[in-house]
Formats: sequence, C-alpha cells, structure tokens
Amino acid sequence: MAARLDAQMAFLNEVDKLKSVMRATTLCDGTRRENSGEHSWHIALYAMTLAEHAGPDVDIARVIKMLLLHDIVEIDSGDNPIYGTVNQAQVEAEEEAAALRIFGLLPSEQAREFIGLWREFEAAKSADAIFAKSLDRFQPPNQNLASGGGSWAEYNVQFDTIESRVGSKVARGAPRLWAYIAPKIQAWFAQNR
Amino acid sequence: MAARLDAQMAFLNEVDKLKSVMRATTLCDGTRRENSGEHSWHIALYAMTLAEHAGPDVDIARVIKMLLLHDIVEIDSGDNPIYGTVNQAQVEAEEEAAALRIFGLLPSEQAREFIGLWREFEAAKSADAIFAKSLDRFQPPNQNLASGGGSWAEYNVQFDTIESRVGSKVARGAPRLWAYIAPKIQAWFAQNR
Repeated sequence: MAARLDAQMAFLNEVDKLKSVMRATTLCDGTRRENSGEHSWHIALYAMTLAEHAGPDVDIARVIKMLLLHDIVEIDSGDNPIYGTVNQAQVEAEEEAAALRIFGLLPSEQAREFIGLWREFEAAKSADAIFAKSLDRFQPPNQNLASGGGSWAEYNVQFDTIESRVGSKVARGAPRLWAYIAPKIQAWFAQNR
Repeated sequence: MAARLDAQMAFLNEVDKLKSVMRATTLCDGTRRENSGEHSWHIALYAMTLAEHAGPDVDIARVIKMLLLHDIVEIDSGDNPIYGTVNQAQVEAEEEAAALRIFGLLPSEQAREFIGLWREFEAAKSADAIFAKSLDRFQPPNQNLASGGGSWAEYNVQFDTIESRVGSKVARGAPRLWAYIAPKIQAWFAQNR
C-alpha cells in the first residue's frame, strides 16, 4: 500500500507543474494568460455545466475525467496554440513520450487507464472524446470575446480561420454551442476588423 | 435554448475569477502561491487518482463534481487559510450569499443542483462530502512537504496544530492517507523545528 501511495503521490506532485504551463488565451479580464492547470479546471466545469448540450451517448463523468487529464502532457511538450504552426508528427511523438513518462509514475494498471483515457481524447473518435474536444475548442473564443480579442489579436486571425480551426471541431461534438457562439464571433470581427 | 446558454455562459465567465483568488499554499516548487482555480483542478485529480482509498459507499464521480465547485464561493468571500483565525458565523453567512449569487446565474434547476452539491460539501455529513473534505485537507501538507515548509513557516504552526486542524479531517474520510503522511510531517518538524 505504501508503494502504491508513493507512486500516486509522485504523480500528483509532478503534475503540479501544469500550473506553470502558459496558454495563448488570457483570463476573461485580460490581465494575464491562463495556465493549463486552471484551464483544466475551467473546462471540466464547462463539461459539468453544459452536459445537456452533449449527445445522448456521452458519459459526462468520463468526459470530466478525460478533461482533467487532457493537458498533462504539456508539462514536457508545452502548449501548442490553436493558431500557431507546428510539426504535427513531432508534437504527437513528444506528447506520447510525455504521457508515458508522466502517467508512468502511477502504479502500472492505473498508468494504463490514464494513458488510455488521454489517447482516447487525442484520437477524438469516441462520443466522449468528440464532446470533450468540442468544449476544449469552445472555451478560447468565449474567453477572447470576454477579454476583447485576446489571442485573435495576437495571432491576427480572421473569422474564416476560426471557422476552420475551431468551428468545425466545436460543431462536431456540440453543434448547439457553435450555433450559439458563431454569430457573436462574427459580430466581434465586424466591429473590430 | 439561447436563454439557457446565456445563463450558463454568464456563470462560466463569472467563475473565471476563481483563477485570481490566491491561497496560502504555494506550488510544489515554492515559486508562488497557488490560486483556487488551479487548486480545484489538482484536487479533482487527487480524487480521481486516490479513489481506491475512499470507503466503498463513496461515488467518485460525485466527489469530483463537488470538488470542481467547492471553492467557487471564494470569488466573493476570499480564501480562509487553514491556520488563520476567522469569525466562523460571518464566513458561513458570506459564503452562503456568494453561493446564491454565483450559482444563481445558472438556469434555476441547475442552480439548485450546484448549490445542493456545494452545501453537501460544506456540511461534511455524507460519505461523498467527507471524502472530498479529506482530500481538500490532505493536499496542503503534501504541497508544504514538497516546497520545504510553505504555509507552516508563514503561520508558524506546530505539529499538534496540524494534527488537530488537518489530521482529524483527513483521517475521518481517508484514514490511510493520514497514516501515510503523518510520519512524513513529523519527520519534517523533527528536522526543521
């Protein structure tokens, strides 16, 4: 039992570093960027609050667990902003290695369970993962609208880029949420660009 | 539907402020205090990781939901450090008003559900709430051990104070976790005081 707890606490102490990984998105008040730890809390609360907008085959308790884990690999590989340009194959290899190292701190059967949930999220094929990904893409435009532009200004994006990189993914798992926010984003661009 | 989403998004944007409420506890690396938003993520992940140390009547999915909500009232009432001195009745009145205001942004039946979960956590009578409270008390000493003293130094506490304010509550819902960490805390005090 002590060995299991040593492994679990090594994991819980290691993931504390996620509170120091900074994202492109700012807080709603625009005062600073948000970190991936607090983002993970916020997005899990999105799942809890917006559960009724998921399809009937979505298990929200699993979605919440997935979202609590979804960014942990960034401790090693860093955050990749939605509007940045990356080498996708390299990012995937780095994230896979990060998952094996960090979740690998846990007792082996628990490591397998957490890696499985994380890979399911990344693959975005199951109903739970598709809804989780939709929320993860829905939160940044919402923060940007609140803060007055946020990462849209920094990356100088246009509405059609948002539609292709964000809209398509939000709409896939949560069409109601995209229908809700798309006109607000369009109105922002009409006023500010 | 738009009215429901307006209410849900007003809530999700308002709770963004929890990322700016600072706690007494620091990050494991001691570089800064942690905020209540990232703490809420970490503690929900504690529940997910340490589920096997809960009693058989504990529903971890409910515990996680409770922990995602447990500190939201601090947006209005602030964090009350474990080793500080407070007017308990005043704190309770402030937190109740905060819960009504902030959860009250949600559609009414959802507000009732979230307020119910938060009150259940505060009352610490159900098996789920008792385990959730145990984790909430277990995390700070663990962060303090990692950072080299943290809030113990600041509040100049002794081991018997930790035992009465923290140990009793951790042991109530998670006796194994207190049995695991108590000797580590004692060893730290033997070396550093």
